[in-house]
Amino acid sequence: MPRSRGSGRARGGRGGAPAVAGLGEFALIERLAGLVPTAGPGVTLGLGDDAAVLEFRERVLATCDVQAEDVHFRFDVMRPADVGWRALAVNLSDIAAMGGTPRYALVSLLVRPDTAVRVVEGIYRGLAASARASRVIVVGGNVSRSPGGVIVDVTLLGESRRVLGRAGARPGDGLWITGAVGKAAAGLFLASRPDVRVRGGAALRAAYRRPTPRLAAGRALARTGVVTAALDTSDGTAGDLLHLAEASRVGVLLDEARLPIPPGLTAAAAAAGRDPMAWALSGGEDYELLFAARPSFARAASRVARAAGVPITRIGDIVPPEAGRWIVGRGGRPRPLVAAGWDHLAGTR
Amino acid sequence: MPRSRGSGRARGGRGGAPAVAGLGEFALIERLAGLVPTAGPGVTLGLGDDAAVLEFRERVLATCDVQAEDVHFRFDVMRPADVGWRALAVNLSDIAAMGGTPRYALVSLLVRPDTAVRVVEGIYRGLAASARASRVIVVGGNVSRSPGGVIVDVTLLGESRRVLGRAGARPGDGLWITGAVGKAAAGLFLASRPDVRVRGGAALRAAYRRPTPRLAAGRALARTGVVTAALDTSDGTAGDLLHLAEASRVGVLLDEARLPIPPGLTAAAAAAGRDPMAWALSGGEDYELLFAARPSFARAASRVARAAGVPITRIGDIVPPEAGRWIVGRGGRPRPLVAAGWDHLAGTR
Repeated sequence: MPRSRGSGRARGGRGGAPAVAGLGEFALIERLAGLVPTAGPGVTLGLGDDAAVLEFRERVLATCDVQAEDVHFRFDVMRPADVGWRALAVNLSDIAAMGGTPRYALVSLLVRPDTAVRVVEGIYRGLAASARASRVIVVGGNVSRSPGGVIVDVTLLGESRRVLGRAGARPGDGLWITGAVGKAAAGLFLASRPDVRVRGGAALRAAYRRPTPRLAAGRALARTGVVTAALDTSDGTAGDLLHLAEASRVGVLLDEARLPIPPGLTAAAAAAGRDPMAWALSGGEDYELLFAARPSFARAASRVARAAGVPITRIGDIVPPEAGRWIVGRGGRPRPLVAAGWDHLAGTR
Repeated sequence: MPRSRGSGRARGGRGGAPAVAGLGEFALIERLAGLVPTAGPGVTLGLGDDAAVLEFRERVLATCDVQAEDVHFRFDVMRPADVGWRALAVNLSDIAAMGGTPRYALVSLLVRPDTAVRVVEGIYRGLAASARASRVIVVGGNVSRSPGGVIVDVTLLGESRRVLGRAGARPGDGLWITGAVGKAAAGLFLASRPDVRVRGGAALRAAYRRPTPRLAAGRALARTGVVTAALDTSDGTAGDLLHLAEASRVGVLLDEARLPIPPGLTAAAAAAGRDPMAWALSGGEDYELLFAARPSFARAASRVARAAGVPITRIGDIVPPEAGRWIVGRGGRPRPLVAAGWDHLAGTR
């Protein structure tokens, strides 16, 4: 079977590589099914019937998120395997934000008739790598002709005993975040500019191409019993914080100076002629967990961080709704918190 | 809010109608969420969080199926509301084929920035009509820019105590089908030729645009305890029968003369210059239940048909694998059973 390695820039079968139309729908499905985990605990019936038959022990979590070519990703900065990894990872991040354990995935794949078989296989290999890392089983899906570019739409089912919603934050809670922010925006810039070399650049590019969903952190946070609200930062730190504030009907104070910035962010922003704080606040796609927690969480934070293998940083406070929603700048001056996240329809920030 | 009625031929906002890009992602999501059932029994957390939190009482069924513009449907023969109805109905049919009860849907919608808001609302109104008819709650989804035409990808979760798989058919079983076949192929022809008038034409056009999933029949069949294998006819009677035969590792004899043909099929085929039996055998998209059952089912068939409100017809026999897979023609002459279903990648039959 052809390897997808190095085929990241191949857009289709135009260069003479075998295309999916030549293979046919059922043969392609069979080949792809051989690349991903399709059986395991809880799967009574998996791929190949009208529907999968599944068993769960806890409350069921369900989420879906799509990755479309030239909308969510571009083949000139990502290999097919990165696209597949990302398509599952963005969904894993949603399950992580609920404090859950991911279990089963359903994958809708839409490709052009001239898309190279090795591109589709590459996507599935990346998806399989992410599935194995998170013990997810692929239990359903379909392959179809796309009216445009390549589209991977994943529905992920998980489970959880304790659920982290968005609506429970209360005044007096601390505001916290895992990992670092701005890394995906810096990584996208660096991925499209291989000539720009900065210290930490490889990690930034990887953070964009293969985000690490914070599954262990999400579960550990849920177990503390004092995390009151959580979500993942897909739209940008500022925009997602507004989502949390709106769902919980609270005010927030975000302390800009405390935002955890990854190595290389400032240098990459300088090379791009951009403000590093704009990336940190509005870059999006970092897939960190942004959460509110009772004051007692401060004593548990370092233990949770150690157990989950990711830094956890306090970046502000939950305040009463009438106090408003503010970013406190480095000079101590507050300015209104505004979202500048990506609008998936308008294609603008 | 603008009605979608009569906007079936509108492809986007080009005629001056408000387009989705002007409304923005979050405003559109909010408007669409207001059109569909989003709360109900078993939904602990629905739309608006990172993932839905759901409760089930029985084994969980999961399936996903996509409808893409100019691949699975065309706006020149379907109104937006038909597209939405169909996007859910094809998934309901999969749950019906497992003998299950549908519960929760997740909807990924991809639209062009210039797609008219009324077209998207029309799609959601049709989806809502199908959801209400089947008591399905929309618990998740996303709206994104499409790199091509409009795409509606639905994941449907259901549940069932007794599950109808594809693999249990045994020699000696009868082969049965609900409803009538060939109706969607005839309906598609008639939908694209409004000038052709045949008796039963309205029902055929409706069968194509708004297929009726056989949910009550599926549940009733599962309860009999003597149905050994079932699937829904989406690829065509012949192709789907081959799927059943392969999954169960059996031979089949399909009696062509017994195939239930809807009123108007022969007249529509004559107008199209096509063979009506080719439509009945290979037309696809009829979403009937094709199933194998122990001989004792014959005594229960009319009761099940009455309870489910759909005819049930015996169309052949399950035979030992070494007997092969045959269609018995009207003259009693057998010919090999071959699939001539739609290949979603090659776009050919």
